[in-house]
Amino acid sequence: MARYEIRLSGAGGQGLILAGIILSEAVVRFTDKEVVQTQSYGPEARGGASKAEVIISDEEIDYPQVNKPDFLLALTQEAYNKYNRDLKEYGIMVVDERVDIATRGGPTYVVPIQKLTQEKLGTRMVVNVVSLALFNKLHEVVKTDELKEAVLERVPRGTEDLNQKALELGEELAENLNQYKIKSKEEEEEE
Amino acid sequence: MARYEIRLSGAGGQGLILAGIILSEAVVRFTDKEVVQTQSYGPEARGGASKAEVIISDEEIDYPQVNKPDFLLALTQEAYNKYNRDLKEYGIMVVDERVDIATRGGPTYVVPIQKLTQEKLGTRMVVNVVSLALFNKLHEVVKTDELKEAVLERVPRGTEDLNQKALELGEELAENLNQYKIKSKEEEEEE
Repeated sequence: MARYEIRLSGAGGQGLILAGIILSEAVVRFTDKEVVQTQSYGPEARGGASKAEVIISDEEIDYPQVNKPDFLLALTQEAYNKYNRDLKEYGIMVVDERVDIATRGGPTYVVPIQKLTQEKLGTRMVVNVVSLALFNKLHEVVKTDELKEAVLERVPRGTEDLNQKALELGEELAENLNQYKIKSKEEEEEE
Repeated sequence: MARYEIRLSGAGGQGLILAGIILSEAVVRFTDKEVVQTQSYGPEARGGASKAEVIISDEEIDYPQVNKPDFLLALTQEAYNKYNRDLKEYGIMVVDERVDIATRGGPTYVVPIQKLTQEKLGTRMVVNVVSLALFNKLHEVVKTDELKEAVLERVPRGTEDLNQKALELGEELAENLNQYKIKSKEEEEEE
């Protein structure tokens, strides 16, 4: 991994900026990699879609802009519409099940993240931590315990148990991610 | 103001990332400007210094990196040492009074931010909001009430009064900033 670009997108208020910050803090604390974390707010942010971007690199990051994400999370349709275009051809895409997506080439997972967060944890407030744990388990950027430490340092006091459960749900989703994989264009053509 | 680059620096834990996020959210909500907000974590971040950067622009921000800050806040010596070098020649510098600085050309203010925050508010926890209000009042990026709205949306419940006082203290410091101005190289030479 020379340089890995991550984009977490959804609606404002879903806590994805915090997720990006927690990921960055975990990486800088527990690895020797470089990290740049960015939020762009433009006219697009005024529409309700929000994104947080993290670049993780083995070397110094001269160019801090995400150009071709290796990983895209999109929790809402609007975020998907706005932010999916420049995803790397074989980049990984994880979208909430309520998002309608176009067929593409790279690994694509349609996961009931919001529904399961609500059902299993009783609130959607921690959908950001569920998503973060899913991403981290998939890529093993930092260890489970390390991510937990970074999460617990940033979330409000009194929400530790809830966030612990959110971490576990995210990891569980990552472990079962294949059941949410959708067929690629190539696979559809083969049939 | 075509493009304005802001760098808020200090120690990790002083909440400057949150200050950068609050500023960005206020600008995007209450003005029609573009904003990019960045945190860089590298070997430098491991040393204890932390910085948050915000670019505010009238136009689309193609290049999201802060190159020559127009404004630098440094709350600690380490942050000053690391982050003052590329400040614009006539950029504004605000440092905590415990920071030793080199004489320079642009407007430079040495302010007892941490001491006054502790004395007047009983805690240094809100030094980030004090600093943010100082910056905002100085530049009038958004109105007092607008900044307040953005702050109250991001800070923990139960800290509204404390943060309101922090906002007032920061504004007061901005209004009395001239008393903290130190002589520039040119002024010293004139004497």
